[in-house]
Amino acid sequence: MLRLKTGYYVLTLVLVAGFVANLHAAEKDQTAKEQKLLRHVVMFSFNDDATEDQITEIVKAFGELPKQIKTIHAYEWGTNNSPEGLNKTHTHCFLVTFKSEKDRDEYLPHPAHKEFVIKLKPILKDVTVIDYWASH
Amino acid sequence: MLRLKTGYYVLTLVLVAGFVANLHAAEKDQTAKEQKLLRHVVMFSFNDDATEDQITEIVKAFGELPKQIKTIHAYEWGTNNSPEGLNKTHTHCFLVTFKSEKDRDEYLPHPAHKEFVIKLKPILKDVTVIDYWASH
Repeated sequence: MLRLKTGYYVLTLVLVAGFVANLHAAEKDQTAKEQKLLRHVVMFSFNDDATEDQITEIVKAFGELPKQIKTIHAYEWGTNNSPEGLNKTHTHCFLVTFKSEKDRDEYLPHPAHKEFVIKLKPILKDVTVIDYWASH
Repeated sequence: MLRLKTGYYVLTLVLVAGFVANLHAAEKDQTAKEQKLLRHVVMFSFNDDATEDQITEIVKAFGELPKQIKTIHAYEWGTNNSPEGLNKTHTHCFLVTFKSEKDRDEYLPHPAHKEFVIKLKPILKDVTVIDYWASH
């Protein structure tokens, strides 16, 4: 009886694990198909007299936007460390990802984004922006 | 007895599902920690007399590099569709991802990359490049 019970356990375990693994694989496949991503690349140069504190505050404020604007699908940023010297004075890069143009078009005039731009402008020297649908 | 057996099944199912879910969460966390990524953002403008065919050839040639240079971890590209008009004449954006600066530093002087740049130069009007370690 004990052996039979153990048999049931093992069989159930194998079946459930297999089921979960299959579910997981199907989900990943689905994700890959659905995840055509719209990238919003933003590069900043700051005025020569902008202080470290002012720049840190801008980076922090940008980083708050994903919490305030629900259509932002992913967000990352960093400072330039390219050895090529082709950064056109830009020192900071932000990569904001959307799942649709509609989501991007909600972001741009969003009050939280507008407030961020007002904060940014006094120390902004230059900005470059490109949006693109990511192809592989 | 049947009810008891069913009880065992349900209990086993719940335990196994919980175990697998925990494993999965731990794995995701591990991945996030390990995957600190170095982004290499490249924007191109092409000469006004560059033909569609010439531009398509350059895009295709760039897309061959991940097959030729093993240190490229991920690659994507797209054409600008930002409504903001801040693209500084750049029309194409390429996002090349590395896992280390060493990997990036192997890419830059790689013969396949150099060959690509020789192909590109005759129709290249302007280029902007920023590399950054992605923070979230």
